[in-house]
Amino acid sequence: MTEPKILVFDIFGTVVDWHRSIVREVLARHPQVDADAFALAWRAGYQPAMETVRSGGRGWVKLDTLHREILDRILPRFGLDHLDDTQRHALNLVWHRLDPWPDSVRGLTRLKSRFTICSLSNGNLGLLTDMAKRAGLPWDCVLGAEVFRTYKPDPRVYRGAAEVFDVEPAKVMMVAAHQDDLAAARACGLQTAYIERPMEFGAARPKDVSPDSANTVHARDLMHLADLLGCA
Amino acid sequence: MTEPKILVFDIFGTVVDWHRSIVREVLARHPQVDADAFALAWRAGYQPAMETVRSGGRGWVKLDTLHREILDRILPRFGLDHLDDTQRHALNLVWHRLDPWPDSVRGLTRLKSRFTICSLSNGNLGLLTDMAKRAGLPWDCVLGAEVFRTYKPDPRVYRGAAEVFDVEPAKVMMVAAHQDDLAAARACGLQTAYIERPMEFGAARPKDVSPDSANTVHARDLMHLADLLGCA
Repeated sequence: MTEPKILVFDIFGTVVDWHRSIVREVLARHPQVDADAFALAWRAGYQPAMETVRSGGRGWVKLDTLHREILDRILPRFGLDHLDDTQRHALNLVWHRLDPWPDSVRGLTRLKSRFTICSLSNGNLGLLTDMAKRAGLPWDCVLGAEVFRTYKPDPRVYRGAAEVFDVEPAKVMMVAAHQDDLAAARACGLQTAYIERPMEFGAARPKDVSPDSANTVHARDLMHLADLLGCA
Repeated sequence: MTEPKILVFDIFGTVVDWHRSIVREVLARHPQVDADAFALAWRAGYQPAMETVRSGGRGWVKLDTLHREILDRILPRFGLDHLDDTQRHALNLVWHRLDPWPDSVRGLTRLKSRFTICSLSNGNLGLLTDMAKRAGLPWDCVLGAEVFRTYKPDPRVYRGAAEVFDVEPAKVMMVAAHQDDLAAARACGLQTAYIERPMEFGAARPKDVSPDSANTVHARDLMHLADLLGCA
């Protein structure tokens, strides 16, 4: 294994626990709603919405806007069609307030001592910055789809990260809890680290976290990744 | 004065002391060279080089590349035409290693407690990230011309910063040691803070730092700015 220089991180599910954070906020605002189903429905609109941009079907639109469009679409299904624009806007910003997994801040802090650490998320820069400031995520640089004007797994995002730092793709390691994100990064020449996040979709719905030998590293969480990469 | 939400910072001259840093590195490598004249000559190529991009005369090129082109052009004048590609590349990266002014890290840390703080520089993202990591500049987000694919004072850079955070331009304050940067930001609706950096071009060449009443704030340095903006 060549030592990477830059670690780039997927965010939703890998660094922060979107499911639990959304369930918590929905329950606090609307206790009558099935918050688990609500979180899953909101997230289910994510890939199809980004695909409209990736396919060139519409111009660049940032994730805050896509999240809001999906929200507007699912609200009637949960009896929340009466929410006004201000309430919808406030709820939509929950994606800026997602909580990190318990190991994230300590793990990233250790990784930062040895590598340049950056987000590489489909979240927009404002979202990622608000999230990092609230949660204390110690990024060296906030990178995201918005910089490259297309969404992962478009190769331009992974190659773009290497170009930003003027390094060969093999000096960049993509860190994610999703094998498809890692496969796309690998196809662009990046190293890959898989992070197990079995509870990403909630404790009631454990996900398959079996290793794929194509990845450079397989880690339980970000503290374990710091161990595996030799960080103090 | 409306309270700003986001502070965006010019970097070269405002947060870091480019002249002294370049003089120091050139003297260490090539003690026979007039390092003061060398630093000024390198910087003098900066605006003309960016203008070729701003005017649309050539496509997007990041600042590392422009710095290298200027370097190649001035080397013969200083008797350094014999430097090979590796040596030129290493010297060019001095812009990633500029030292902050003595008040910068403490001032930014105080400002960060109350505002979202971002670079908004013509430097490329890799340069700004390397610089921040080495110097301990605690940015919430590294923004720069590279995100907007044009150079300041193109209005798209200032407006782009407000759009990233989905706020009115008046909620953003541009912080800079250059009145022309601030005038361009003001024309886009941003608030402006002038920072006195009388020694930007070296101690032998003090620059005019008189106030312009068009600015929202006039501060001696970043600690003073933190005082004026009510930071603890």
